Amino acid sequence: MLGISVIGYGYWGPNLVRNFSQVANARVVSVCDQRPERRAHVESVYPAIRTCADVRDVWSNPAVDAVAIATPVFSHFDLALQALRAGKHVFVEKPFTTTSAQAEQLVEEAEKRQLTLMVDHTFVYTSAVRKIKELIDNGSTGKIYYYDSVRVNLGLFQHDVNVLWDLAVHDLSIMDYLFERSPVTIAATGMAHVPGQPENLAYLTCYFDNDLIAHFHVNWLAPVKVRQTLIGGAQKMIVYDDIEMSEKIKVYDKGITLSDNPADIYQLKVGYRAGDMWAPRLDNIEALQIEANHFADCIANKRKPLTDGTVGLRVVRILEAASQSIAQRGAPINL
Amino acid sequence: MLGISVIGYGYWGPNLVRNFSQVANARVVSVCDQRPERRAHVESVYPAIRTCADVRDVWSNPAVDAVAIATPVFSHFDLALQALRAGKHVFVEKPFTTTSAQAEQLVEEAEKRQLTLMVDHTFVYTSAVRKIKELIDNGSTGKIYYYDSVRVNLGLFQHDVNVLWDLAVHDLSIMDYLFERSPVTIAATGMAHVPGQPENLAYLTCYFDNDLIAHFHVNWLAPVKVRQTLIGGAQKMIVYDDIEMSEKIKVYDKGITLSDNPADIYQLKVGYRAGDMWAPRLDNIEALQIEANHFADCIANKRKPLTDGTVGLRVVRILEAASQSIAQRGAPINL
Amino acid sequence: MLGISVIGYGYWGPNLVRNFSQVANARVVSVCDQRPERRAHVESVYPAIRTCADVRDVWSNPAVDAVAIATPVFSHFDLALQALRAGKHVFVEKPFTTTSAQAEQLVEEAEKRQLTLMVDHTFVYTSAVRKIKELIDNGSTGKIYYYDSVRVNLGLFQHDVNVLWDLAVHDLSIMDYLFERSPVTIAATGMAHVPGQPENLAYLTCYFDNDLIAHFHVNWLAPVKVRQTLIGGAQKMIVYDDIEMSEKIKVYDKGITLSDNPADIYQLKVGYRAGDMWAPRLDNIEALQIEANHFADCIANKRKPLTDGTVGLRVVRILEAASQSIAQRGAPINL
Amino acid sequence: MLGISVIGYGYWGPNLVRNFSQVANARVVSVCDQRPERRAHVESVYPAIRTCADVRDVWSNPAVDAVAIATPVFSHFDLALQALRAGKHVFVEKPFTTTSAQAEQLVEEAEKRQLTLMVDHTFVYTSAVRKIKELIDNGSTGKIYYYDSVRVNLGLFQHDVNVLWDLAVHDLSIMDYLFERSPVTIAATGMAHVPGQPENLAYLTCYFDNDLIAHFHVNWLAPVKVRQTLIGGAQKMIVYDDIEMSEKIKVYDKGITLSDNPADIYQLKVGYRAGDMWAPRLDNIEALQIEANHFADCIANKRKPLTDGTVGLRVVRILEAASQSIAQRGAPINL
Repeated sequence: MLGISVIGYGYWGPNLVRNFSQVANARVVSVCDQRPERRAHVESVYPAIRTCADVRDVWSNPAVDAVAIATPVFSHFDLALQALRAGKHVFVEKPFTTTSAQAEQLVEEAEKRQLTLMVDHTFVYTSAVRKIKELIDNGSTGKIYYYDSVRVNLGLFQHDVNVLWDLAVHDLSIMDYLFERSPVTIAATGMAHVPGQPENLAYLTCYFDNDLIAHFHVNWLAPVKVRQTLIGGAQKMIVYDDIEMSEKIKVYDKGITLSDNPADIYQLKVGYRAGDMWAPRLDNIEALQIEANHFADCIANKRKPLTDGTVGLRVVRILEAASQSIAQRGAPINL
Repeated sequence: MLGISVIGYGYWGPNLVRNFSQVANARVVSVCDQRPERRAHVESVYPAIRTCADVRDVWSNPAVDAVAIATPVFSHFDLALQALRAGKHVFVEKPFTTTSAQAEQLVEEAEKRQLTLMVDHTFVYTSAVRKIKELIDNGSTGKIYYYDSVRVNLGLFQHDVNVLWDLAVHDLSIMDYLFERSPVTIAATGMAHVPGQPENLAYLTCYFDNDLIAHFHVNWLAPVKVRQTLIGGAQKMIVYDDIEMSEKIKVYDKGITLSDNPADIYQLKVGYRAGDMWAPRLDNIEALQIEANHFADCIANKRKPLTDGTVGLRVVRILEAASQSIAQRGAPINL
Repeated sequence: MLGISVIGYGYWGPNLVRNFSQVANARVVSVCDQRPERRAHVESVYPAIRTCADVRDVWSNPAVDAVAIATPVFSHFDLALQALRAGKHVFVEKPFTTTSAQAEQLVEEAEKRQLTLMVDHTFVYTSAVRKIKELIDNGSTGKIYYYDSVRVNLGLFQHDVNVLWDLAVHDLSIMDYLFERSPVTIAATGMAHVPGQPENLAYLTCYFDNDLIAHFHVNWLAPVKVRQTLIGGAQKMIVYDDIEMSEKIKVYDKGITLSDNPADIYQLKVGYRAGDMWAPRLDNIEALQIEANHFADCIANKRKPLTDGTVGLRVVRILEAASQSIAQRGAPINL
Repeated sequence: MLGISVIGYGYWGPNLVRNFSQVANARVVSVCDQRPERRAHVESVYPAIRTCADVRDVWSNPAVDAVAIATPVFSHFDLALQALRAGKHVFVEKPFTTTSAQAEQLVEEAEKRQLTLMVDHTFVYTSAVRKIKELIDNGSTGKIYYYDSVRVNLGLFQHDVNVLWDLAVHDLSIMDYLFERSPVTIAATGMAHVPGQPENLAYLTCYFDNDLIAHFHVNWLAPVKVRQTLIGGAQKMIVYDDIEMSEKIKVYDKGITLSDNPADIYQLKVGYRAGDMWAPRLDNIEALQIEANHFADCIANKRKPLTDGTVGLRVVRILEAASQSIAQRGAPINL
């Protein structure tokens, strides 16, 4: 029986407790939060779970094999490092850390101690993203030309990180999973409209070593909620709309065809192909449930998590470079 | 009676003939196109309009007071210059020219000869864009934070210009009209997926001398047609969707409020305000009709067109800088 | 402190327990369900709530002042009658009863004993429906011409009632609330596609004593979920789409104008008016929470619930007549 | 060369002239309209087409082999009869006639004289409807359970016919084409909100000799334009939305499954199946073009048109019965 402690019981913590509670051969031993009212909430809903205000009670508890860290970003590194040093497996919220140096140190520490270190890149575990991965891997889409994502809404300005670290981290983790390769150069632009606060709107371009290009628009100050990704492949193009209730993924049999005919200035050698559209059925399983089981399974069977620390590190490297590029109004940064 | 000649009868020329034919006190005297089948088409539909294959027949025709140029972009400069030198007023398709030097020369030539020079920035004359202008100018939106536009679809790859010159020119002309100011720095990224062809997908950021930021996504290789602009103001936010049949403009009474309370790391000093949404009724008049009348009126009354050569020049300067920035993977270019 | 017992812990019962638990000056004393696994579920989540398998334990419990009945329709009458006779106030799920005679008897019994009898017509307590009511009552819409509702989806075939009793009951309760008057004649058509089962698709028309007409389409066998109501008024028309996340209600300044001009056969004397569209902001409060508070308040202050037994009776009368009309392929039934 | 005369040049006449002009081996000889300004319009756009004010000039013109009648409904019968008696083939707008007796007489007259008589049921010739027909005929949908159509908008109140004759005629012609069978009983309800005018809103149910049921909602007084049809089959369900630009037809692999397990009151024996959605590519050909060619082909090769007079008669019979049923508030009428 795997004993888990959840550290931080704010917005996301309750989801972690609920999902880890449903993992077979695991149980939530304790919840740690400095705020008395949050601990009281845990106690009323889950009388069987212990609460504490001091993380040292977690480190010292032999019933705790693993911790799930859902605290503000700036504290991830310290807590994760302490946890690993206390011999606990670690599941940590996104974004992994605030610098790539921190991420590297955690990856090293986990390896040295042979502990499981996993980053909560939730979207990678959704039916929608897994279906897209399948369509790319089985050749349906053909070569991918571009990945374009818009993730905007009104709300939840963060103080310690800009909007890229808050929202684009989702899309970067999806991109990392789908393409299994890292960009070579990035360029980002953005703006902070609230004095003294980080950028609330940003645009990020990722260049790869071929003609694949990825672009991300994230915004905390939009009047409507948009979660739309366009993926252009040589054979098929995909629209992934995470707000759609029923058809989140639409696969278009559309594209261009290139002809070899000599063409004068009025004739285009590019032709267009438009066929059927298809929206595959998606399983309706909560991603976090799959993820919680995957974490437990990786610990039990000493397997590498799909979204391990090195994945988290790759994403943090892009975010770090993006912040640099924004400060230089889009100047390209090589990774 | 103003005599007009339309030069180039391809995709857009028929719209020019149809709309200039309906202008009071004006008539379409001739249509010039090198292709016999295009001339034959004009002759069958408009028996009263003369056709010719050589533009010199236009320049020498005393019944022609003004020309409307709807030929491929690379030929705009030469034709417009010849027309001005022949003493004709000029209405020219977007994009105005292929370089800012050309645009400057045309502006100068027209001024010297006191001829009307107008660029066909059609969207500026639509009810939707004029309503947005009204909402900005009368203070409804409050200070504008950002302008974000997506204009993507499958099709019509151009050979002589990249996708920014083809599609973003629309959005840049709208931006110029709405804000009446030029960006100070731009940064652009993009990619050409067809070997030997210009960029078919591009992203452009415009920085102004305050915290206004504008961003444009244009794409010839998208599976769906999107024409959506988000405009974020301090008091109201606007969604302008040109594909909507009935409610092209939606005005959201949404935004943030800033509090002065001391806030710790867990408390945000940013509040959110969400009120009603309102979609103003828009007139259903063809923009090109308004534009054609405006051109005739400017000639008759020696007024400066709303979208004159200097406006066209400003837009070309941005496009020129954007192409430079793309070549440097997003490096910022000061205007 | 009002003591409440929830009878029936299937699909809706948990919502009742959760919402009544949050009512000030009330507490959920017990939950009654014949199924051991449902009782076990209550016990694990709500250790403080007693459970029982036999309703006689509810009737005899002096700590129970009121019951909320969420059992299959056929059992509503018996349980509500027993509850009233045991001196308990009654909150009962929709549809109220399976016959109007039963509904009449319950209304009478409650009156005789001066007990509160309320039917769970949830939609009447939503922000959307209350906003529509406000727009009708304050004269915004003008005289109402028609009410047209579509409520279709795939799923949840019922055995003991047809689709009208399951789905149209929502719309009939909304109609009753909005118009505060009963239809004089109804006509209904429908079809049962599963042998031995009730109608899974039905259409119902309600005639009033003026030219108001209401129509309902309900369907358990539709490929898409639709929850759309059109309300046509002389001054304004409303579209109420309950599936929309953000703008559930859209108010259109559209309509017809009648001219007195003599008109020949080719000229229409009907003109059309099209103005702005407006989507009022709606509060985001759970309707059942408002309803639970209202029930407690009515008991405490001896007020008549907005959706009391006589409202439930009116709705059942229409459903009863509709079933008759369906059996006669649409023959009109006077109420 | 087939000579065609178009009678009536109002809303639809120009479309007929344009499309018949493009039929190979046919030409539009003349256009007849009583209104001088409409004739002048024809003359300016089509200098080669003769115009006349008196239909007798059409009947007596030996260059006219066939007529296309696009006049108000009440005049269809007289004009078509005169045309047939003058030996002309007849293409007539929908609705065919105002009574079934008239329709019968025209069918008879055409047969007697061996002339082609075709009704303009345009939707039958659209790619969307033909694709649905194909999916039904090749067994994809399985047995059809229901056909439900909504065709509503603001506008174009007619004087001489009610909204069923104006709008439902489209859906009835589609239904006739898809199912190739006639309903046995119909029931209709509706309301006239403008004094002295026909019903502007109506609902029609068609019963067949099995458990297929069809329902139509038509409305001239709706704030939004809706053109949506749901078709429920045992294997697949179709949503046909004629307002959609790109995906007019969506085919859902959804439905119910019936189990033989003994089921108690809480267990449903109906299961649900939800699979992929698929939107087939549709040709982008104007339906009226196909129809015009079909008419010319039927005349040339003495073939029976797909939408001949007997089809028009079947649709008129339903409309006639519907008007009777409306007058009796939904009373069923056997055909």
